[in-house]
Amino acid sequence: MAAKSEKKTKQYVYLFKEAHGLGKELLGGKGSGLAEMHSIGINIPEGFTITTEACTLYYNSHEKIPAFLEKEILTKLHELEKLTGKKFGGKENPLLLSVRSGARVSMPGMMDTILNLGLNDETVEALKRKTNNGRFAYDCYRRFMLMFTNIAMGLSRDEMDAMLDELKKAKGYKNDYEVTEDELKELIKKYKAYYKSKFKTDFPSDPIAQLMTAIRAIFRSWNNPRAILFRRLNNIPGDWGTAVTVMQMAYGNMGEKSGTGVGFTRSASTGENKISAEFLQNAQGEDVVAGIRTPDDISKLHKLMPKVYDELVKDAKKLERHYHDMQDFEFTVEEGKLFMLQTRSAKRTAKAALKIAIDLAKEGICTQEEALTKIDAHSLDQLLHPTFVEADLKKAIAIAQGNPASPGSAVGHLSFDAADAKARHDAGEKVILVRAETAPEDLEGMVSSEGVLTMRGGMTSHAAVVARGMGICAVTGCGAAIVDEKNRKVTINGKTYGEKDTLSLNGSTGMIYEGAIATEPAHMTGDFATIMKWADKIRAGKMMVEANADTPAEAINAVNFGADGIGLCRTEHMFRNGERLDMMQRMILADTTEERIKWLDMLEPYQEEDFYQMYLAIGGINLNVRLLDPPLDEYLPREADKIATLAKETGKTVEDVNKRIAELHMTNPMMGLRGCRLDVVYPEIGRMQTTAVIKAALRAEKTLSEKKGKKVHITASIMVPQVVEARELKFVKDLICETADKIIAASDYDKKLKYKVGTMIETPRAAVTAGEIAKHAAYFSYGTNDLTQFTFGFSRNDYSSYITQYLDNNLIDFDPFKTVDPAGVGRLIELSVREGKATNPELVCGICGETGGDPESIGHFYEYGCDYVSCSPFRVPGARLAAAQAVAKANMAKAASETKAAKKTKKVAKKASKKADKKSK
Amino acid sequence: MAAKSEKKTKQYVYLFKEAHGLGKELLGGKGSGLAEMHSIGINIPEGFTITTEACTLYYNSHEKIPAFLEKEILTKLHELEKLTGKKFGGKENPLLLSVRSGARVSMPGMMDTILNLGLNDETVEALKRKTNNGRFAYDCYRRFMLMFTNIAMGLSRDEMDAMLDELKKAKGYKNDYEVTEDELKELIKKYKAYYKSKFKTDFPSDPIAQLMTAIRAIFRSWNNPRAILFRRLNNIPGDWGTAVTVMQMAYGNMGEKSGTGVGFTRSASTGENKISAEFLQNAQGEDVVAGIRTPDDISKLHKLMPKVYDELVKDAKKLERHYHDMQDFEFTVEEGKLFMLQTRSAKRTAKAALKIAIDLAKEGICTQEEALTKIDAHSLDQLLHPTFVEADLKKAIAIAQGNPASPGSAVGHLSFDAADAKARHDAGEKVILVRAETAPEDLEGMVSSEGVLTMRGGMTSHAAVVARGMGICAVTGCGAAIVDEKNRKVTINGKTYGEKDTLSLNGSTGMIYEGAIATEPAHMTGDFATIMKWADKIRAGKMMVEANADTPAEAINAVNFGADGIGLCRTEHMFRNGERLDMMQRMILADTTEERIKWLDMLEPYQEEDFYQMYLAIGGINLNVRLLDPPLDEYLPREADKIATLAKETGKTVEDVNKRIAELHMTNPMMGLRGCRLDVVYPEIGRMQTTAVIKAALRAEKTLSEKKGKKVHITASIMVPQVVEARELKFVKDLICETADKIIAASDYDKKLKYKVGTMIETPRAAVTAGEIAKHAAYFSYGTNDLTQFTFGFSRNDYSSYITQYLDNNLIDFDPFKTVDPAGVGRLIELSVREGKATNPELVCGICGETGGDPESIGHFYEYGCDYVSCSPFRVPGARLAAAQAVAKANMAKAASETKAAKKTKKVAKKASKKADKKSK
Repeated sequence: MAAKSEKKTKQYVYLFKEAHGLGKELLGGKGSGLAEMHSIGINIPEGFTITTEACTLYYNSHEKIPAFLEKEILTKLHELEKLTGKKFGGKENPLLLSVRSGARVSMPGMMDTILNLGLNDETVEALKRKTNNGRFAYDCYRRFMLMFTNIAMGLSRDEMDAMLDELKKAKGYKNDYEVTEDELKELIKKYKAYYKSKFKTDFPSDPIAQLMTAIRAIFRSWNNPRAILFRRLNNIPGDWGTAVTVMQMAYGNMGEKSGTGVGFTRSASTGENKISAEFLQNAQGEDVVAGIRTPDDISKLHKLMPKVYDELVKDAKKLERHYHDMQDFEFTVEEGKLFMLQTRSAKRTAKAALKIAIDLAKEGICTQEEALTKIDAHSLDQLLHPTFVEADLKKAIAIAQGNPASPGSAVGHLSFDAADAKARHDAGEKVILVRAETAPEDLEGMVSSEGVLTMRGGMTSHAAVVARGMGICAVTGCGAAIVDEKNRKVTINGKTYGEKDTLSLNGSTGMIYEGAIATEPAHMTGDFATIMKWADKIRAGKMMVEANADTPAEAINAVNFGADGIGLCRTEHMFRNGERLDMMQRMILADTTEERIKWLDMLEPYQEEDFYQMYLAIGGINLNVRLLDPPLDEYLPREADKIATLAKETGKTVEDVNKRIAELHMTNPMMGLRGCRLDVVYPEIGRMQTTAVIKAALRAEKTLSEKKGKKVHITASIMVPQVVEARELKFVKDLICETADKIIAASDYDKKLKYKVGTMIETPRAAVTAGEIAKHAAYFSYGTNDLTQFTFGFSRNDYSSYITQYLDNNLIDFDPFKTVDPAGVGRLIELSVREGKATNPELVCGICGETGGDPESIGHFYEYGCDYVSCSPFRVPGARLAAAQAVAKANMAKAASETKAAKKTKKVAKKASKKADKKSK
Repeated sequence: MAAKSEKKTKQYVYLFKEAHGLGKELLGGKGSGLAEMHSIGINIPEGFTITTEACTLYYNSHEKIPAFLEKEILTKLHELEKLTGKKFGGKENPLLLSVRSGARVSMPGMMDTILNLGLNDETVEALKRKTNNGRFAYDCYRRFMLMFTNIAMGLSRDEMDAMLDELKKAKGYKNDYEVTEDELKELIKKYKAYYKSKFKTDFPSDPIAQLMTAIRAIFRSWNNPRAILFRRLNNIPGDWGTAVTVMQMAYGNMGEKSGTGVGFTRSASTGENKISAEFLQNAQGEDVVAGIRTPDDISKLHKLMPKVYDELVKDAKKLERHYHDMQDFEFTVEEGKLFMLQTRSAKRTAKAALKIAIDLAKEGICTQEEALTKIDAHSLDQLLHPTFVEADLKKAIAIAQGNPASPGSAVGHLSFDAADAKARHDAGEKVILVRAETAPEDLEGMVSSEGVLTMRGGMTSHAAVVARGMGICAVTGCGAAIVDEKNRKVTINGKTYGEKDTLSLNGSTGMIYEGAIATEPAHMTGDFATIMKWADKIRAGKMMVEANADTPAEAINAVNFGADGIGLCRTEHMFRNGERLDMMQRMILADTTEERIKWLDMLEPYQEEDFYQMYLAIGGINLNVRLLDPPLDEYLPREADKIATLAKETGKTVEDVNKRIAELHMTNPMMGLRGCRLDVVYPEIGRMQTTAVIKAALRAEKTLSEKKGKKVHITASIMVPQVVEARELKFVKDLICETADKIIAASDYDKKLKYKVGTMIETPRAAVTAGEIAKHAAYFSYGTNDLTQFTFGFSRNDYSSYITQYLDNNLIDFDPFKTVDPAGVGRLIELSVREGKATNPELVCGICGETGGDPESIGHFYEYGCDYVSCSPFRVPGARLAAAQAVAKANMAKAASETKAAKKTKKVAKKASKKADKKSK
């Protein structure tokens, strides 16, 4: 009943010409692209799109297409027949279709396409008559049967491929195109027999039945394991669904005046503002994408069909102006006529992305702000990858060159299958995955490799697209590399390399070298600096980016990466070795407070020196020191001999030491005596750490001022971890302030040293009582690692034993420790920022957990009202960009809604004035 | 500035006659009682109360009394002078004061009182002249100096007591009253010298200075360690503060026509409707409360001063009518004139509470509903305590009798100090605390004991009051028991008992027996049944009470205690022993799903039989089965020999078994692979358990129907633990439903068996996404244990290492695992009940954690919109009462606000009609 009532109000199928502006959410990427291209006058084949909502409807209807939806599809099919003047299943002028999936975001290689749908024993003859090409017609029929059986019916194509191979072998053919029409007819008979033997029913000859089966197959393919894996790796929610695009076939394989190609409106590798595409004469698109034949450069099209080439360039410019972005596209030339088949925002290397963003803004295609949003903040990592040391590179032996498919440099032992690559990577080995070509099932192996080398495939092959997306170095289509996957070796120009050999790849040049080449840190380009400048300008005063750093070296790194401060300095690592560890252990084993204080007093100068060096390293910018966080038993030995030594050295019995270890042992260390609970139970620990921070700040002020020749002012920051309650924070804050005030008052250097006390918000209780806690805090720092642990009840140490099943079964959309979980953790953050700022308008809120460096999460944090994020130094540039993007998107959305409002006002005013005019008449 | 502006709007000091209706929150218990007594015409000494808000102001003003507050106090003091015709510090007719603390709830023995304030060398002479009794006047002066020095100045009284003892010894006096006026004067000189030697300043002779110092001392005493301990044990928030009541002295020690007493308007022990009080002639109240002298029965007052007695009885009835409740009271007779000093709702035994509630309703003093709210739901536990087996009791040797101070029966070894009692209790020993008399510092020792025996003190002594409050058996004032605390022995009628001897106490009769007497379960009285009937009527359809039970025996117990169903049946205990454990271990060690299923199939009949027996035990009422919850490694052995055996028996290597144990070992078991995560990773476990529940329900339906001779319908309930996300619940629910539907469809008995699937809400994420989760759940059951763990990040296994410091430092108000934490856990529950019911109006919400049996928590849960609680069988009666009280209070509040609204309407109507009348004139 619910479904029926929905029918009346909702349209599930749109002709391309009806669908302009409906967007990717509803139409999927392909359907939306076709509708937009239609609206700006680009020539496309006619067709229609079944929406993503129809996919949801399918899943909500127990994986069935409801009758009313089928009816709507057939209605649109009929309109398509009218538009094309062809008849679906017609014996004279048959309409033949391609049926393609199209999700909201591009999922390369993941979804399934069926071409030439509508062919049967009768329509194939009509096609033959119409094209005057029997071989072509029957080859289409054969391909359709293969795809339908394989994709729509889910049968492996191996046996059908074998039938063709057998035929070719018997006849001594090398290539498919040598097979004759009659031989194809024989093959089709065999396919039919094979189909019947497998499904106990004839291959469907009814085009409508073919179509509905294909649509269902596409809906089902949304939940195939590869699609699920891709979604997992790319944080794509499982409930978006896929649209289905049905359109008239355009044939690139009709002869010399036909062909197919794919390309970019600019260079995806360098960003150069020049069309960059590949073309394959007399071929179907699938041949190119699958990497089976290596295509020619687009210059070939220019040479063969200059007018078509010019039209293609014109279309590319049109697309960029329309989308405010660089696009990639697919096209087919059918007997001299250009059809665009698809367009979407193009994947690009990080380097290209920077150049393109700058150029787009300079060319006036969009504003600086919008241009920034076109860069994938994740991809900046790529620019920070090491490159080969120039001097070493000169000495290196280049053995071959392939396509520079994905930048970076990779050095590793060779691996010849994905599972092996993953296993060796997991065991700590650096490997390069070497394959004839890659397929979607190689994904996990690629992710585990330093780089990928393939024998076949161009810049748009699977290996290339995926590697660029993942930021993995890749060299593709190196024909000189003869890959023998079975025997796990590759022969390059006569020399054979096996699993124990090392190669080096340069993904930016496509060069392959023998042996290992030394690498050096990334150089950031001028474009990088420009983009960072733009980003910093846009986010200024709105979203700060600090870094997590525990050592002076890390702190310097952070400053070099442009961090605004050190948002998290963990003190627990400072007690892990040497004499500090000895003192720490003695402090923990102390029988009395006095004894504990004695050891703490001895530890203090070490801590102080650590902080002093940190301050010097960062030159006085914010250093946010967190009080000791982990349970104390982490510092105690577990081995009997070490316990015996410790007992001996401390003059205690082994029993006593063991007793203390047992006392401090936590059943659930994550929820044990840790964080500020340590300061409640042993206030002397917090006092020692405060002493160290304040004394270090005073000393650093002095040293820095002397160095710079002018007064440097430091504001010390001390942060209290694991808070659950306002009074608890006040208790710890009081002991910090008492200690700090005393030291500052006694200072002979700066009696006005400023300091502030903040708190971590990392327990759910802290989040829901943030309004009270904020009264005692200068700032909140969300520890999203712990907050996620407690919100889910998922231990980070243990969740690997179940998280995979959750992701595979689509029970959660992504790993919540990597990207903030909006419905749970995010809601708690949003609520607590709001309530904290309500009681303390001066409160500064930020993030210092793992998600603080994740671009998607940064977008959410800005929405929640956060003022800063802090992440590992390496992730700072990406975070700066992501922060700017968050601000830019919010500004753009605001501007758009204002424009809308202004338009409305104008309209109303116009109407009113018209009315007034009328009246006055 | 803030404080000054507050001054203008807020009154901090009220005369008793101004304060009627302001309530205990503002005036404290004493101040409120005096104001109310004044308003109903009971004779009290004049005075005023400084509010609890003043105490908060004091703490917010850095522990200082702001000038404007001091001014307000002095203004009221002046008004008091006018009322009494006496002058504070006056040399002729001096006003003398008692200064007492008064918190919102009674805190016996915890707070400090100063009497006779205003005395100095001049006023003492005036008092002497006025009373014509020099000894009396100087004794008052001495007592005042002692109290002031001890309480207001915080000096131990030992040395001052020693001065008096020395004097008595020198003179050969046995009693204080033998000391003469002149000797007292000498003693006062010594006190002055002592004071000066300690404080380097004279004892303050200025009465105003005395008063302000005393007020500050009382404010400070709010945070003395004993007060903090009491608050902790009684869940009293630390920020309530105490009021200060200042009133004219009334002297019970002025001679034969004077005296003092305390009492109850009914019997606190049996509930009998007859005044029950004690009287001590020629004494001050402190003598009685401290248990120093054992008072006489109130009949003595009747004999000595019948008119005063009659007035007292009249006042008692007045108080009950006014408060709708039984009261306790303090009074003083000063030269034949009765002054009531204090009234409050009286503590009573559980048995008395039931009778009193029933009588109050029958006598028309209040409604049944209100009467129920007068019973302390915690105290019902007392009635469920075991009593001595009658036959054994007859054979027992009674050795003495004391006051039946607190009911119950206790058997244990003897302990002679509180610390020892606590230590032995913690070590598992059952002890009886034997003391000459108890003091507040004995509190923790009392709580740790089975029972308390004292040599001195009546029914209102410290030991008696505290024991009744805690539900601990106590026999007090047993003069036959000569307690030698130092040598750790007690001699009763010539026989000596030491630490290794066992005694048995009957707190309801006061009898003491040698050796151990066997005990038997509690018998519930007719009053109990009546109250439960009333409670069940009031809570019907609003708040159900179910029980947690894992075995048929527990389930029967639950039904006997009146549980409405079994709200939680934990299945994990069903696999802990014998061959089940063997199979469980083999299931866990299985290498393949097939092997796991094989062992699960073997376990299924055991589970099924468990559930079947549970259903039979409870006769078909709700049985809510929770799927397996703990991490699997709990079932695996840890000892090398057991591991070796297991390996041998399962045909695996020791390495393999150890590997599997290591795999399943959780760093944080509470947040590991547990709860429904087990069903996501091993769906076959959930399938097996569902099979067992459904098959058991089908079999039980059949058996019960045959037994009862009519069709019995069971609705099976299966509950999913540890849910974090709606899709996860759906996944598990789907596998439950598929399994259940198949079995039911195949059943030859009932193809329409009903079942429902609910979820635990025990992770914060489940709480904040409850709106989505509710779409897949028939009910929510809040696991407050886990929800509290995750909300705080406090592990129940580990929190003992810090919780004491949190309670002692007043950082949290109470143990959140015992009473629900409203600001954190409670807020999450309230939010999720609201959002869950919004998306699923049929949703039933309840509690199955520890707090489900806690009366305070039950009140909160009702406010949050919960429909039921489930607790251990023993706590069911208390929960039934608490549930009814929650409903009653809500009803009463609603009625009160309606009455108020109606009155307002009436008033408005009246005004309007008057206005109309006027107009018409």
